Amino acid sequence: MTSGRLEAFSDAVIAIVITIMVLELRVPHHADWESIRPLLPVFLAYVLSFVNLGIYWNNHHHMLITVERVNGRILWANLHLLFWLSLFPFVTGWMGENEFASLPTAFYGGVSLLAAIAYFILQTAIIREQGPQSRLAAAVGTDLKGKISPVLYLTAIPLAFMFRWISMALYVFVALMWLVPDRRIESAFEPERSR
Amino acid sequence: MTSGRLEAFSDAVIAIVITIMVLELRVPHHADWESIRPLLPVFLAYVLSFVNLGIYWNNHHHMLITVERVNGRILWANLHLLFWLSLFPFVTGWMGENEFASLPTAFYGGVSLLAAIAYFILQTAIIREQGPQSRLAAAVGTDLKGKISPVLYLTAIPLAFMFRWISMALYVFVALMWLVPDRRIESAFEPERSR
Amino acid sequence: MTSGRLEAFSDAVIAIVITIMVLELRVPHHADWESIRPLLPVFLAYVLSFVNLGIYWNNHHHMLITVERVNGRILWANLHLLFWLSLFPFVTGWMGENEFASLPTAFYGGVSLLAAIAYFILQTAIIREQGPQSRLAAAVGTDLKGKISPVLYLTAIPLAFMFRWISMALYVFVALMWLVPDRRIESAFEPERSR
Amino acid sequence: MTSGRLEAFSDAVIAIVITIMVLELRVPHHADWESIRPLLPVFLAYVLSFVNLGIYWNNHHHMLITVERVNGRILWANLHLLFWLSLFPFVTGWMGENEFASLPTAFYGGVSLLAAIAYFILQTAIIREQGPQSRLAAAVGTDLKGKISPVLYLTAIPLAFMFRWISMALYVFVALMWLVPDRRIESAFEPERSR
Repeated sequence: MTSGRLEAFSDAVIAIVITIMVLELRVPHHADWESIRPLLPVFLAYVLSFVNLGIYWNNHHHMLITVERVNGRILWANLHLLFWLSLFPFVTGWMGENEFASLPTAFYGGVSLLAAIAYFILQTAIIREQGPQSRLAAAVGTDLKGKISPVLYLTAIPLAFMFRWISMALYVFVALMWLVPDRRIESAFEPERSR
Repeated sequence: MTSGRLEAFSDAVIAIVITIMVLELRVPHHADWESIRPLLPVFLAYVLSFVNLGIYWNNHHHMLITVERVNGRILWANLHLLFWLSLFPFVTGWMGENEFASLPTAFYGGVSLLAAIAYFILQTAIIREQGPQSRLAAAVGTDLKGKISPVLYLTAIPLAFMFRWISMALYVFVALMWLVPDRRIESAFEPERSR
Repeated sequence: MTSGRLEAFSDAVIAIVITIMVLELRVPHHADWESIRPLLPVFLAYVLSFVNLGIYWNNHHHMLITVERVNGRILWANLHLLFWLSLFPFVTGWMGENEFASLPTAFYGGVSLLAAIAYFILQTAIIREQGPQSRLAAAVGTDLKGKISPVLYLTAIPLAFMFRWISMALYVFVALMWLVPDRRIESAFEPERSR
Repeated sequence: MTSGRLEAFSDAVIAIVITIMVLELRVPHHADWESIRPLLPVFLAYVLSFVNLGIYWNNHHHMLITVERVNGRILWANLHLLFWLSLFPFVTGWMGENEFASLPTAFYGGVSLLAAIAYFILQTAIIREQGPQSRLAAAVGTDLKGKISPVLYLTAIPLAFMFRWISMALYVFVALMWLVPDRRIESAFEPERSR
């Protein structure tokens, strides 16, 4: 299996996940401000998840570009990642509808954590396949962001039951951290391009 | 990242948005004209949004054809556009279900406005990347339509609270304005083809 | 615009339409035969629409293979076809949920008719673009099926209010007529391949 | 029709099916453990179906790689497979919502069985098209897993009314059996690659 096909399937799943999330913004039956106000937290949660999935889509692509051969391990590590990403519409809707209550906020952190771990497993599977001269390993380097993110999510989960706004702040912080353009992988390929 | 991949992902998102919009046409539980009549405004709103999204898909494609290299700015400007497009099913359903009441009609204008601005930002990001000899800049020219549309949407929003049918007429007018085949970009490439 | 891109977008829309149709099969809240029995007509309607959409996807592909250059007319004729196809989940669910009552059965015929006409318009637009030596015109020939189908749908609509089972029989007949492999276009390309 | 197009369409349908399944995980209106607990069986059913669809996607791809020419029989055998796969969200939601009650559990087995048979029919259609030197036939060999799976599903259906946990165990066993990397087809192509 070429990485192109894995990528096309992953793209389709991420595109669907990012889009059906909007179905959690239930159309109100009335046309006044009263009806639309309860949707504000759902909308804010939607924005956060949209950005998170956009980051995953972007990083996933940069990672798969380095892959030439897909083995069974990579394939299932990828499906495992897609599984956790597919749960974002659920936790987003639940957290938003309950105005960032503790339990859904903790669940949001849980799904975020498991997606981050799944991403790390996929990355490791690819590096192992590529062997000692792995281009991905070189590009990722110390992978500081990839190591900090799960720690922050893990911190946010118990905090959701005490200071839930700190948990939210952590989720936003992780997203912003990744939004800053990540030139690690791009620059690793730059020399080849400029030749 | 090549523009091909950006395009495939955008196409998938637009295809999903345009299709799940039909889910707002809730299947009535009875089989008589009484049950289907309230769906007429939802249907009309659906037609309008279908045309709008068709126009975005078409223009988006013509724009991306000129792109060779995608940088982070273009990528996020594109996701930003997809974000506002993804809200069309919501505002379409809300406006239709409430028979074009003022508030949802204003929101429809708001989402349309923000999508138009997002499109403009994306266009600007691409032109900046392409530099002084930008093919897109040459093709777009004065971009009259692109500048008139947001102004009309901006006008329609307050009007929705006074003369909401004028707002609707403005939305329809903008769509018709874009439906007229836009040969600017196509013709800019024509000389190359005919050589 | 190349036909490849038009095809990819159309494929995505048809794939989504054919799949979200299953959402009209509402999961019953109980686990007995009583709960599942009312879903039988919805299921039968789903089978019919799945086959119809499969036929459209198949024929659409064979038609677009002959297209080299997509102009604005073809693009919008194609979106027009996708619009009517996107209404299949609605009429399928409505007809199924009301056990093939007259009005929804007539509506099903209406959407089928409008989709068939949209297909014919698209075909005509492509043949016009290709000019006198149109490969599609040669392949389609007299297009007997394409002409009979709308007539049968048109007949089925008023019949739905008198003998609705005849209407259903006509819908099934049209589908079966198309299911018989259509070698017209394939064979028109055969000589080229065998050379 | 090339197999590439058949594959792209099938991928899209499978990606949509695997993703809309998560919509059966209805967002609870409250934010406590009481509200989330009833979703556990739905979640478990979702995991099982996600794995099953992942296996189908994977095997389907390996099978289509051997196909060069798609005829009408293959095309419809493929749509037939997609039809049964499209019913997974329904049976998954029904089984999960009713905590693995007998009837939905039997239905789950029924859909699994019909999908497995549809896969076998598709495989047979491809082998017939490829003729005596069929690469797929060589790769599949005795197809032990493909023959055992329907037998196990068939066994699980009546068992669901007596010992439904045995049925569930059988469904899980079949999934695990396929999860073990299937090197048959891959290895049949290995010699060519290594040359």
